[in-house]
Amino acid sequence: MLTRIDHVGIACRDLTARIAFYQSAFGLTLVSQEINAEQGVREAMLRVADAPAGTSYVQLLEPLRPDTPVGRFLDRRGEGIHHVGYGVTDIAAALSAIGATGIRLLDSRPRHGSMGAAVAFLHPKDVGGVLTELVQSAAG
Amino acid sequence: MLTRIDHVGIACRDLTARIAFYQSAFGLTLVSQEINAEQGVREAMLRVADAPAGTSYVQLLEPLRPDTPVGRFLDRRGEGIHHVGYGVTDIAAALSAIGATGIRLLDSRPRHGSMGAAVAFLHPKDVGGVLTELVQSAAG
Repeated sequence: MLTRIDHVGIACRDLTARIAFYQSAFGLTLVSQEINAEQGVREAMLRVADAPAGTSYVQLLEPLRPDTPVGRFLDRRGEGIHHVGYGVTDIAAALSAIGATGIRLLDSRPRHGSMGAAVAFLHPKDVGGVLTELVQSAAG
Repeated sequence: MLTRIDHVGIACRDLTARIAFYQSAFGLTLVSQEINAEQGVREAMLRVADAPAGTSYVQLLEPLRPDTPVGRFLDRRGEGIHHVGYGVTDIAAALSAIGATGIRLLDSRPRHGSMGAAVAFLHPKDVGGVLTELVQSAAG
């Protein structure tokens, strides 16, 4: 069902500075920057590696306002890993299969994610404390 | 420098139950289970996907005792994502390059990781709150 670790989502307070850090410290390449108003974030995708099933990224997230999911995460926990996103080839089928196991879906239907992907989040309380995202990339 | 997202490390209270969960909910394959006494964990590696640069895994970690890094993490934050591990081809060269940028190394020399890998951790305070591990797999 899962084709790759699509990305690790990291919450930060200063997106521009954190992008520069990942470029200089680890040599990652900035691929995309966008605002996702629905999720309340400014975000950046930095390529870690390409593979047959798609690319793996570090996703950096800066909240647009304190009263957003990532803003509240920063208040509660500080900067750090916010979620993990796994690649899938058919997100509707994956959501159906996962929902059938009893895991609650935060998004019963896919919504707009980074770089045109269709994404959906699973409830972290049903995944051992891990906010888990499914990602069907625009290319896939 | 980084060749892949090698794994996402997830802290849990019951390794056996969490392995079964990832197998049944996401169809992951259990590849390895071992005890790492030095790090104070029982751990399991579940394959997400293979790629040219190596495999990506979910790594599940159960502390051997409360007074271990993962035990203290569970006390403080509860179950959830503990760290991210990136693949490298030459861990000594990577540590040298990263250390030269001013990032503090928790391990100045590689130590024993899952499945015979050589691993080293970077200080999370110097990586935006992210406990970051470098992994040179035994095969690579």
